[in-house]
Amino acid sequence: MITGIELGGTKTVVAIGTEDGSIIDECRFPTTLPDETLGFVIDWLGGRGHPTHVGIAAFGPIGIVPGREGYGKMLATPKPGWAGFSLTDKIAAAFPNARIALDTDVNAAALAESKIGAAAGMDDVAYITIGTGIGGGILSGGLLVHGALHPEFGHLKVPRMPGDDYRGICPFHRDCLEGLASGPAIKARWKKAAHELPANHPAWDMQAWYLAHGILSLLAIVSPSRVIVGGGVSQVDGLHARINARLEEIAGGYFPAAMEPGYVVAPALGQEAGIRGAFLLTSL
Amino acid sequence: MITGIELGGTKTVVAIGTEDGSIIDECRFPTTLPDETLGFVIDWLGGRGHPTHVGIAAFGPIGIVPGREGYGKMLATPKPGWAGFSLTDKIAAAFPNARIALDTDVNAAALAESKIGAAAGMDDVAYITIGTGIGGGILSGGLLVHGALHPEFGHLKVPRMPGDDYRGICPFHRDCLEGLASGPAIKARWKKAAHELPANHPAWDMQAWYLAHGILSLLAIVSPSRVIVGGGVSQVDGLHARINARLEEIAGGYFPAAMEPGYVVAPALGQEAGIRGAFLLTSL
Repeated sequence: MITGIELGGTKTVVAIGTEDGSIIDECRFPTTLPDETLGFVIDWLGGRGHPTHVGIAAFGPIGIVPGREGYGKMLATPKPGWAGFSLTDKIAAAFPNARIALDTDVNAAALAESKIGAAAGMDDVAYITIGTGIGGGILSGGLLVHGALHPEFGHLKVPRMPGDDYRGICPFHRDCLEGLASGPAIKARWKKAAHELPANHPAWDMQAWYLAHGILSLLAIVSPSRVIVGGGVSQVDGLHARINARLEEIAGGYFPAAMEPGYVVAPALGQEAGIRGAFLLTSL
Repeated sequence: MITGIELGGTKTVVAIGTEDGSIIDECRFPTTLPDETLGFVIDWLGGRGHPTHVGIAAFGPIGIVPGREGYGKMLATPKPGWAGFSLTDKIAAAFPNARIALDTDVNAAALAESKIGAAAGMDDVAYITIGTGIGGGILSGGLLVHGALHPEFGHLKVPRMPGDDYRGICPFHRDCLEGLASGPAIKARWKKAAHELPANHPAWDMQAWYLAHGILSLLAIVSPSRVIVGGGVSQVDGLHARINARLEEIAGGYFPAAMEPGYVVAPALGQEAGIRGAFLLTSL
């Protein structure tokens, strides 16, 4: 039985699926404390059979490189009760014969979009999500990027849009990408939630500026063949076209990939990218 | 006979070595036109035996992913006569039985520093060189990063140092990292060459600002365990310490790897990183 867990900061998905990323049965519920949340996951799965594979797509920061200290553990997350909790120990204790695969929720989504979604068949793909925070998952040469930790795309810094002197809201960096362009940053800056701002509001030109500069950094570092921008704050009409236009302008003809029409696209798998990626993690 | 070629914009190195990256014999000469330069390389090697392996570390942009269109070819380089020239065809015609391995000069240097240099034993390493331009090579999970093209680290954009309104000299992007912090940018900005500026000149604080922000982007995207900064413009006393200090400040406690002392270091292999990396490419 191939199973998947998508552990998000606010909601958790537990599901049974296939190795090619289809969902057979799933359950979505709020993320609470770790023992309670994982306890529910284990009960739900255990009531349905014997998991042979468990793919876990988790919020971070989290140790995702097998063999390194901290593998399977939630690291210094501000989410109460989670720092230091071992996801893999908890799952292994419940299902000792299951093979566990673990990655970040955004890496799992990048994997799913690259196999069965908006970048199907591509080996070099970045997936960005904009919501409460800004995160990024990266597939490079067909493999998910980990590094010493894992990508923390929201925390890079980009040039200010001319005339913008908003302070930024990231508690660590103030005006990193997340501090300037996440959902809470938009709300703090414009005094309205992103979904209340019409498509012709100047907020979206600014949003495109900041995202295009973040994507320029991706181009200069991992050179994706396509970039997928999803998450709640990406859903306003025309945002992807605005990002493409700004990116083409600032790329200055230098990055051939970014000149392709539709370089920056919406996800094809929507809300299901994370959990479907969790299934796909089990066959890597 | 294991052989290597480091093809730079101004100089070329051809050498015989070992699969673990040692140099047995080498020759350095100016890079001229492609047929002449490669002709010299082929004569030099052919006069010394039968190459079984040829590792090529080349300036870019260049097609480095086998099987993709443009593999082995110099792409849109401004260097006269080189655009469209196929390095691999030329070498394969001269040594039809040799196994050819090709990557960028900076990826080769990153490989060498990660195997036998300043980041020996690490799987996640970035190598940055600052000279006529700014380039970067990246090893992620033990593999060199290619993507749709290859890293073009010099062409990302970073926030301006407060008070700096210098225009920048990159013909494509004006004020990308290379446009603000390469050797020619320093010379244009301060009216003196980098090697003429004393270690306490304000140019170096500014240089550290721009490089630290570029490295922050690396941390947020590929999360290197160590970053090596080399090239002619990196050799002033204390620059690496300045970059480390600025990086620690802007990282805001968020990236554990960057808190390690000596996160940003000088190369251990100096001028030999590229050619020694070319040998190592042959056994990947």
